Amino acid sequence: MPYAPFDWIDAEARGRAAAGLVRTLRPRGAEPEPLDLASNDYLGLTRHPEVTAAAAGAARRWGAGATGSRLVTGTTALHAELERELAAFCGFEAALVLSSGYAANLAALTALSGRGSLIVSDAGNHASIVDGCRLSRAETAVVPHADAEAVAKALGAHEGRALAVTDSVFSVDGDAAPLPALAEVCRAANAALLVDDAHGLGVLGDGGRGALAAAGLAGNDGVVATLTLSKSLGSQGGAVLGPARVIDHLINTARTFIFDTGLAPASAGGALGALGVLRREPERAARAREVAAALYTRLTAAGLTAVRPDAAVVSVRAPSADAAVNWAADCRSAGMAVGCFRPPSVPDGVSRLRLTARADLTEEQITAAVDTIVATAPRQAGARVS
Amino acid sequence: MPYAPFDWIDAEARGRAAAGLVRTLRPRGAEPEPLDLASNDYLGLTRHPEVTAAAAGAARRWGAGATGSRLVTGTTALHAELERELAAFCGFEAALVLSSGYAANLAALTALSGRGSLIVSDAGNHASIVDGCRLSRAETAVVPHADAEAVAKALGAHEGRALAVTDSVFSVDGDAAPLPALAEVCRAANAALLVDDAHGLGVLGDGGRGALAAAGLAGNDGVVATLTLSKSLGSQGGAVLGPARVIDHLINTARTFIFDTGLAPASAGGALGALGVLRREPERAARAREVAAALYTRLTAAGLTAVRPDAAVVSVRAPSADAAVNWAADCRSAGMAVGCFRPPSVPDGVSRLRLTARADLTEEQITAAVDTIVATAPRQAGARVS
Ligand SMILES: Cc1ncc(COP(=O)(O)O)c(C=O)c1O
Ligand SMILES: Cc1ncc(COP(=O)(O)O)c(C=O)c1O
Repeated sequence: MPYAPFDWIDAEARGRAAAGLVRTLRPRGAEPEPLDLASNDYLGLTRHPEVTAAAAGAARRWGAGATGSRLVTGTTALHAELERELAAFCGFEAALVLSSGYAANLAALTALSGRGSLIVSDAGNHASIVDGCRLSRAETAVVPHADAEAVAKALGAHEGRALAVTDSVFSVDGDAAPLPALAEVCRAANAALLVDDAHGLGVLGDGGRGALAAAGLAGNDGVVATLTLSKSLGSQGGAVLGPARVIDHLINTARTFIFDTGLAPASAGGALGALGVLRREPERAARAREVAAALYTRLTAAGLTAVRPDAAVVSVRAPSADAAVNWAADCRSAGMAVGCFRPPSVPDGVSRLRLTARADLTEEQITAAVDTIVATAPRQAGARVS
Repeated sequence: MPYAPFDWIDAEARGRAAAGLVRTLRPRGAEPEPLDLASNDYLGLTRHPEVTAAAAGAARRWGAGATGSRLVTGTTALHAELERELAAFCGFEAALVLSSGYAANLAALTALSGRGSLIVSDAGNHASIVDGCRLSRAETAVVPHADAEAVAKALGAHEGRALAVTDSVFSVDGDAAPLPALAEVCRAANAALLVDDAHGLGVLGDGGRGALAAAGLAGNDGVVATLTLSKSLGSQGGAVLGPARVIDHLINTARTFIFDTGLAPASAGGALGALGVLRREPERAARAREVAAALYTRLTAAGLTAVRPDAAVVSVRAPSADAAVNWAADCRSAGMAVGCFRPPSVPDGVSRLRLTARADLTEEQITAAVDTIVATAPRQAGARVS
């Protein structure tokens, strides 16, 4: 028998090719695209001179890596400062920084549930939440999207420890979770509420303090938030925010915290630099929301179908996966980067362009972006009408 | 009913306190410990001026963050260069960089197995491999440590797709996996072999090309390696190395790749800088092994029980978890950092000091380290005899 343990991969690759679902990496240059509506750099901070200087300075001062697990040599005073700053900014008692937002969700979900407990998870939740549920060994009830009543029902059907988990702003469609209603049903069922504020931090709440601050839930006893440092804060890393006892519990039990090297000093420094800019220029948060609203209003006025944005993500429907890919490619040819989400990356099978509204987009850039998207829209998407 | 969904956490905390198993974070300063035998910075590169300059330069040039998924805006030319360099250095056709070594293991295990397939996993494998097996939905057979015959038996009992997975150098005890024998049994069973070379890269093989190069297995059709950039390369991040079709498959299917923000430019730059130093100064790899051998020889000569190191990790037995904690604390009081591994972080329940042999330790530092460890050893560990 010839040794060919990966031959099955070729068959899968042919299947993807036939379905038009092949993904390839396109390395980009250091300069931003002339018109970037694809990155998650919502506040335009990743290339801000103060932020890159903070990242560079941290690498020089602390070294290129953390050198070990946070429990061994990987906790520097810089990590501790970032944790204090994140907790204070968002209004929580304590914070724990991890190497990514993905790792933060895996940590929170596995450490706060476990065999015999229940996790109630929104059908639109991010992949890292889905994977956290799988890893947790808890029973998982997936409930219809943004449906607090369904959460209440699932919680009511379970005896014992329970946790409801949701994105604050859903990553694909940019719509918001009904946080006040979710908090209420969790309180009634004595269940914890875990909110992934990846797309709320820096955009929602007073000065970008996030969706939980906006909902008056930050710092509440039963509420835990996960964050990523890789979107509004323009860096890399993740964090869990909550009561001090929850954070202590994670330090002692969360495998993706204990068995992972600490976040690189440059990324911790970059995130701290971004928090500093945001504290000084709180208007960036509102501006990102304004840009999103402007994009939505003008695109729908031109006949396209989009989801009303609750934060800085604007999702525009495409009639098919192929059409979405071509649409995004046509935008790229016109010098504009947009996200293109299609199966299997979307839970509902609907293909769309995903636009991100950056606080630093100018009026001219917004106009140019709308013009390009409308001009390149596939006929069935409802544009090219004017 | 009072709202108190986290009260169960207090009971667990009391249990840990009673068992002497409470973990706390101790933020460190920017200067290395006078005597650091705890970090995984095996080649002494994390504070190397060329490496920190590469990290700082990348942050300034490319920004503090990658700004998105590698499939959207998160692939820069720097990521592509790092992937080419890693593949070329280690002798593989292609490479894919992820945000951590943890994420690399989750990606490789989930994308290369799946429902109906079998994963055969060494009982001593790292937590990220264990979690990858759990996430994969494959059937997992955990086999006795470093036992190729047991792997053969488990593979023989399964019809269909199969994969054996092992650390190259086990993270806790520093012993090596029997790679040639494992490759043979995998070949005989038409199973893939996945090797986590986190502790082999930079230490084993010609000029630090890793355990797979050392075993003549790099680039083989059925062999895939995972790496971390956070140990010998002094940075942060992970990678999967293998045949191009395997890497393409991961780009299309691995959730911890697709749904995660790309590695921060500073970390990619730092790892590239470290690879450059290592190419120019290949003797660093052999020196790390020499330091480990010297530590082992002198500690066992003093009556301590240690595992003969196959790379740069030296594991010294402690009689109990308490004794290990006190031993490590006494070393710290004497100005020396050592790792302290104890339940539940160790798969076998045995507590130990974990020493890392850095290539840049001087003869005087090695002597001082041995003297300190021996002088602080608990009586039952067999030292304090002289
Ligand atoms: C909702 C949500 N949660 C978590 C993550 C993961 O964060 P990170 O990319 O920092 O790992 C992302 C995006 O990547 C996200 O969109
Ligand atoms: C064997 C092994 N694999 C994987 C990892 C994870 O790598 P990283 O810390 O870069 O996530 C580690 C250590 O952290 C390890 O020791």
